[in-house]
Amino acid sequence: MTEPLRSRVMIEVRYAETDQMGVVHHAVYPVWFELARTRLCLETGYHYADIEKLGYYLVVSRVEARLLKAATYGQTVAVSSWIERLQSRGLRFAYKVDHQGQILARGATEHIWVNRSSGKPCRIPGILAEPFARLRGKG
Amino acid sequence: MTEPLRSRVMIEVRYAETDQMGVVHHAVYPVWFELARTRLCLETGYHYADIEKLGYYLVVSRVEARLLKAATYGQTVAVSSWIERLQSRGLRFAYKVDHQGQILARGATEHIWVNRSSGKPCRIPGILAEPFARLRGKG
Amino acid sequence: MTEPLRSRVMIEVRYAETDQMGVVHHAVYPVWFELARTRLCLETGYHYADIEKLGYYLVVSRVEARLLKAATYGQTVAVSSWIERLQSRGLRFAYKVDHQGQILARGATEHIWVNRSSGKPCRIPGILAEPFARLRGKG
Amino acid sequence: MTEPLRSRVMIEVRYAETDQMGVVHHAVYPVWFELARTRLCLETGYHYADIEKLGYYLVVSRVEARLLKAATYGQTVAVSSWIERLQSRGLRFAYKVDHQGQILARGATEHIWVNRSSGKPCRIPGILAEPFARLRGKG
Repeated sequence: MTEPLRSRVMIEVRYAETDQMGVVHHAVYPVWFELARTRLCLETGYHYADIEKLGYYLVVSRVEARLLKAATYGQTVAVSSWIERLQSRGLRFAYKVDHQGQILARGATEHIWVNRSSGKPCRIPGILAEPFARLRGKG
Repeated sequence: MTEPLRSRVMIEVRYAETDQMGVVHHAVYPVWFELARTRLCLETGYHYADIEKLGYYLVVSRVEARLLKAATYGQTVAVSSWIERLQSRGLRFAYKVDHQGQILARGATEHIWVNRSSGKPCRIPGILAEPFARLRGKG
Repeated sequence: MTEPLRSRVMIEVRYAETDQMGVVHHAVYPVWFELARTRLCLETGYHYADIEKLGYYLVVSRVEARLLKAATYGQTVAVSSWIERLQSRGLRFAYKVDHQGQILARGATEHIWVNRSSGKPCRIPGILAEPFARLRGKG
Repeated sequence: MTEPLRSRVMIEVRYAETDQMGVVHHAVYPVWFELARTRLCLETGYHYADIEKLGYYLVVSRVEARLLKAATYGQTVAVSSWIERLQSRGLRFAYKVDHQGQILARGATEHIWVNRSSGKPCRIPGILAEPFARLRGKG
C-alpha cells in the first residue's frame, strides 16, 4: 500500500468569513474542507456533481476541526485533503490548512454512501470502487 | 384596497454573522429577509416548504438592501415583511429591520413563479392566488 | 457535584442553510451550537458580548459534530448546550440537536481563554470563575 | 475620461453555497462581489486589509443584485468588478457574474468612507485619492 493521493487547493480568505474577533470564524473550516474534498474527488475522474448525477450522495456523518492558529483576511491559505480510511460503505477524509508553511488547522470528515432514489445507505457504487481505491493508495 | 399584511420576526444576531468590522456583515440581510418572508408566506396557510411540495418555486430575481445603521452581536432585531407588488407571474416583498425602534436596514426582493417540473416561469398557482391576494390587501 | 446546567434554544431552519441535497448543510451545526452556547453563557449573568468587553475571548480550539439525521427547511429544531469539562484555562461545551424528540446531531466545542490586549492564552477571569463553576454544577 | 479598470476573479462554486433548489443561494452573490471588489482594490497598491490598517473602513451602505440565470455546483464563474461612481465621501462598485460567456447576475454596492477611530463618515483618505481616481479612469 502506497501513500494516499493528496489534493491541495489555494483559498483566498473572504471578508465575510471573518468575525468580530478579527479572524476566520470556525464554522468556515468545514466549507474549506469541502472545497479540498471536491478537488480530491475530481482525481477519480468524476466531479462530485457527476457522482450525484450517477444517483449517489456522500453524506457527511461526522466533521471535526482542530484550530491551531487563526486565519485572517488578506491571507491565501492552502487546504490539503486525502482519504484516511476507505471502507465499503463509507470513508474518512483528513484535511490540513496551512499558510506559508505554518499549520493553521487540521480536520476530518466521515461520510457514508447513500442511494439517492431510496435514501438508504449503500455500498460504494461499483464504477467508483477502483477510482477511490486508487486515491486511497491501494490501486 | 387595504394595507398589506405585515409579518414580524425577532432574530438574535449570531456571532458567525459578524465580520471583522465588529458588525453584522451585509450579506446576512438577505438571509434575514428570507426568514421574515417565510413567516409572511405562512399567513397564506401554506409554509413555503409546502409551496415547493405543490410543485412551484418562488425564484429570487432581484435583491436589494440599504444599510442605515449597523446591527451588532448581543442584539435581537425585528425584521418585518410585506408584499409591495403582486402580479400574475411574480411579486415584490419589502423588508424593514429595526432594533428598539431604530431602523437598521430596508430592503426588497423580487420573485418569479417557476414550475418545478418544467423549470419554466409560470403564473401564480391557482390555489395560491387568493391567499397571496389577501396578504397583499386585495382580498 | 450536581448536573451541569443545560440551555435550550429553538432554531427555525433557514432556507439559506439548506444545500442541494435538500437538507441543512453540515457547516451550519457549529453556528447553531454557538447560538446555544451564547444562551448558556448568559446564565452566568454576562452575555458573551459583555465577556468580550471585559477584555477576554473564548477562542474555539476544536469543534466536532456527529450528524445522525438530517434537519430540513420547515422544521424548528431544539439545540441544547452544557459544559462538559471546566478547567482553569479553558472548557468544553457539549451540544445536542433534536426535533420532536428525535436526536439529529451531537457535538462539542473546546475553547481557551485569551486576553484580548495581549492576545495570549490566560486563566479564566476571576470575575467569571464562580459563575462558570455554577454552570458546570460545581457551584 | 477613460474606461474604469475592471478586475476579474474566478470563483469555484462551493457545495455549501447551494440551497435545496439545487442552485447557488442569492445571499452568496454579495460575498462573491466582495471577492471581486477586494481584487479590484488591490490595483490601488493597497490590499483592503491594509486600508483598514491605515485607519479607514469602506462601509457598505447599499447592495443590490439582479439574478438572471442560476449558478450551479460544478461551475467556476467569473466575477468582474469596476468603479461606477467615485465621490469624495463614497463610491459605487458594479459587478457582473458570468459563466462561459453567459451573464448570470449583475449587481452593485455603495460604500462610504468611515474613520475607524471616530466611527464617523469622512472624505477619502488623501493617500488613496489618486489610486482610486486611477481605477475610476480619471487618473
